[in-house]
Amino acid sequence: MTQTDLPRPLPVVRLRPKAEARAIRHGFPWVYSDELVTDRRTQALAPGTLALLEDGERRALGLVTVNPGSKIIARMLDRDPEAVIDRGWIAARIARAAALRERLHDAPFYRLVHAEADGLPGVIIDRFGDAAVIQPNAAWAEAALGDLAAALTEVTGVTTIVKNGASRSRALEGLPEETVVLTGALDGPVAVPMNGAVYMADLLGGQKTGLFFDQRPNHAFAARLARGARVLDVFAHVGGFGLAALAGGAASALAVDGSAPALALAEQGAAAMGAGARFATRQGDAFATLEALAAEGARFDLVVCDPPAFAPSKQALEAGLRAYERVARLAAPLVAPGGYLGLCSCSHAADLTAFRNASARGIGRGGRRGQLIHTGFAGPDHPMLPQLGETAYLKALFFRLDG
Amino acid sequence: MTQTDLPRPLPVVRLRPKAEARAIRHGFPWVYSDELVTDRRTQALAPGTLALLEDGERRALGLVTVNPGSKIIARMLDRDPEAVIDRGWIAARIARAAALRERLHDAPFYRLVHAEADGLPGVIIDRFGDAAVIQPNAAWAEAALGDLAAALTEVTGVTTIVKNGASRSRALEGLPEETVVLTGALDGPVAVPMNGAVYMADLLGGQKTGLFFDQRPNHAFAARLARGARVLDVFAHVGGFGLAALAGGAASALAVDGSAPALALAEQGAAAMGAGARFATRQGDAFATLEALAAEGARFDLVVCDPPAFAPSKQALEAGLRAYERVARLAAPLVAPGGYLGLCSCSHAADLTAFRNASARGIGRGGRRGQLIHTGFAGPDHPMLPQLGETAYLKALFFRLDG
Repeated sequence: MTQTDLPRPLPVVRLRPKAEARAIRHGFPWVYSDELVTDRRTQALAPGTLALLEDGERRALGLVTVNPGSKIIARMLDRDPEAVIDRGWIAARIARAAALRERLHDAPFYRLVHAEADGLPGVIIDRFGDAAVIQPNAAWAEAALGDLAAALTEVTGVTTIVKNGASRSRALEGLPEETVVLTGALDGPVAVPMNGAVYMADLLGGQKTGLFFDQRPNHAFAARLARGARVLDVFAHVGGFGLAALAGGAASALAVDGSAPALALAEQGAAAMGAGARFATRQGDAFATLEALAAEGARFDLVVCDPPAFAPSKQALEAGLRAYERVARLAAPLVAPGGYLGLCSCSHAADLTAFRNASARGIGRGGRRGQLIHTGFAGPDHPMLPQLGETAYLKALFFRLDG
Repeated sequence: MTQTDLPRPLPVVRLRPKAEARAIRHGFPWVYSDELVTDRRTQALAPGTLALLEDGERRALGLVTVNPGSKIIARMLDRDPEAVIDRGWIAARIARAAALRERLHDAPFYRLVHAEADGLPGVIIDRFGDAAVIQPNAAWAEAALGDLAAALTEVTGVTTIVKNGASRSRALEGLPEETVVLTGALDGPVAVPMNGAVYMADLLGGQKTGLFFDQRPNHAFAARLARGARVLDVFAHVGGFGLAALAGGAASALAVDGSAPALALAEQGAAAMGAGARFATRQGDAFATLEALAAEGARFDLVVCDPPAFAPSKQALEAGLRAYERVARLAAPLVAPGGYLGLCSCSHAADLTAFRNASARGIGRGGRRGQLIHTGFAGPDHPMLPQLGETAYLKALFFRLDG
């Protein structure tokens, strides 16, 4: 699908006369379907087709990839209309992304490519040492997967590449679910060093790409609070906050999750850290477990709740905020006097203010008051386009509760 | 002025019948003058008088300090109407604040008390090893200064205490400017270790309390970007970002500031770090210097601009945002291809979205594009009440610019 396979001239797609080209000129990376002239010719383009985007006055805006079936009908690839979109172009984008991560991280475990912000629209690549996981979440990326994998190998030297096609955003692009090893082989979970902890990442069967690198700075903040502390990690997945707290010197950590396989990986991680004796797990519904712990009179010096996206869409916002409030209300009473409560949201639709208000309300309804001591976002291996700044999906709030 | 000096019953102040007691009950710490019954008796209270606050139905809400001359006419001290506000009460609040800082920091250099969020309304205390600076920015704190100083000594063992009465907020409380050593003595600037750098803080003649502890996590982020880099620190004060970058392995750092005394302290800091040979300063107007550097063809791998509050009030917001945009526009061309630009705002009135948009616009007008890789706020020694969450005055944005 890359340009070397395509004859010039490329197909041309054009903004509607009244559509605003200013956002695109200022760096906005998408054209929505109601902004584009969608004549029969454009409708007939195969998903992922490379095209030249013009404004209403036929001035070139850049090279885009078109998916007539998606609400995001065109995604900007290169503002240079003469650019050649081939394996070398992809490799240059990956190398640029790698330079940022290599500056920031001591070991090659991070999000290597974060889609639009790294100039590869819809493409997520997570690096796990010698292995990498690609999520091709846009039609062009699915079509260019061979070039993406080859360029990734060329730039990074990874020997194992997994295609993870489980993202919900693939459905919006009309792409099927499929997770498969493209190159090399995997022999069980990968041990990932992060913040002094060890996480076991299942690159084939786990959630997302197997590990949530985005919480790294928030894990690190929790670790700073954890010295000597009794820690409760709710919605723990493979032990994100709990194992970081153990690395920070926690006296004990209890991880709660609904998934037995995730908790088994968390236990493997704790054992690999030599911290198995300080670590325990409890499988079950998080809300029910919070209530059970309260009934048991359990108290912790640090409680962190990192639930799945309760407000994945604007329609789900109100119910989602109620769920975040409920988490805070049930967790707050478990925090010892003067202890700490970390509350996270990975919901796009719930902005920082709405999430903070829901959290503060829940803490109050849980009978506590608190200071807000830290607000964190995803780490710098998850860059954003400033034009999409409102899409800071990940928020972590740390409160210190009253004595 | 503390309660031990006052006879019970205390004066009573009352919310107007229609005033909303809910915010207070939910943790909001202030009563505005138009929410309180301000009869002649209340008007006659001396600034800083302790009183019992009641709602419109005469139900007790807590103990407040009243300043009839201030727009914030009452500040909540304790929700327990029976509390005794004396030196012991102040010491308990300081001890609680100290416990948080001691958990987070290896050395006693931090903001020890951050006003309302630490339960001491209008009181700022910065700790510099054996010395501390108190800003009594509310009438009650001015009146209770003796008890504040004694409690501070009791809890922390500091031997030198400075009263810094230079804050603008004192004028709103009807308090005069005055900076004076209350206890002990100062023998020149204090050496402050932070992020591996050494800062020289002038506790008597410097800006604010002599050093800006609030930027600590943002300095730390800049240091991570600085290895081998040519760094430009604009509005450098005593070398905040520049010296942190040198500690992070910068090849060189150039500090620009309008204040010759501040730059002299920065030079002393660099020398104390053994990094004097990698450090240079340039005294002058920041905007003019940015233009001059561009004219000279200077390029840097990391540029950070940390200006004073350009939008200190809502009235100043538009002009302030234009100034932030101008900083970004003038700084962006100085960033080498693929380099980094840090932009800071300490303006209450400019919220995160407005500041981010102004910064992105300025970068664009400076002929560049960028990814936003980090959004940072003040460090956890600057806690907030979640009810005052919108008052996150300090914002730091780090961009990586195009290659």
